[in-house]
Amino acid sequence: MTDAPTETPEATLQRLRASIDNIDAALVYLLAERFRATQQVGELKARYAMPASDPGREEQQVARLRALAEAAHLDPEFAEKWFNFVVAEVIRHHVAAGAEENERP
Amino acid sequence: MTDAPTETPEATLQRLRASIDNIDAALVYLLAERFRATQQVGELKARYAMPASDPGREEQQVARLRALAEAAHLDPEFAEKWFNFVVAEVIRHHVAAGAEENERP
Repeated sequence: MTDAPTETPEATLQRLRASIDNIDAALVYLLAERFRATQQVGELKARYAMPASDPGREEQQVARLRALAEAAHLDPEFAEKWFNFVVAEVIRHHVAAGAEENERP
Repeated sequence: MTDAPTETPEATLQRLRASIDNIDAALVYLLAERFRATQQVGELKARYAMPASDPGREEQQVARLRALAEAAHLDPEFAEKWFNFVVAEVIRHHVAAGAEENERP
């Protein structure tokens, strides 16, 4: 980081928090886009009576995300837990919406 | 979505899943960047003996993320749960790393 010699600790904190806020906004918008896609998957599977779950797909997703996490120097355990959290919410959302589709996309 | 008349349901599923995979890769890299920033916050606060937690900051973050979620048509409840999950992991990570700093950034 560009730790300017004249920057006070409070200014550094402000600077880092501004970055965290920007990253969080980007994350929220990406999550929204992800939900749009999983919603379409749910609708598609319901319309064409496709199998609701696909364990092979999910395994593949977890393995890929763990590899991506390692490349990005993010704890792969965290990446996997995070993925499971998001997928659980997608399922809960589908169930709450009365959808018959429980895709774990 | 551009549901080409000749696209089979299987092809549509493939297309949507390719988007989900792209979005997930972006999310993992953004999460990695978020962790880099929170780690720096942790180090800064430890070095300058700044207060570890800041409830006002966290309240502000939740309110902002809920507003962003609404703008993005994402369930604000989900956005808040998601934020709490990530923050809990940040704290767990700090504790596991032996840091004395428990910032909930």
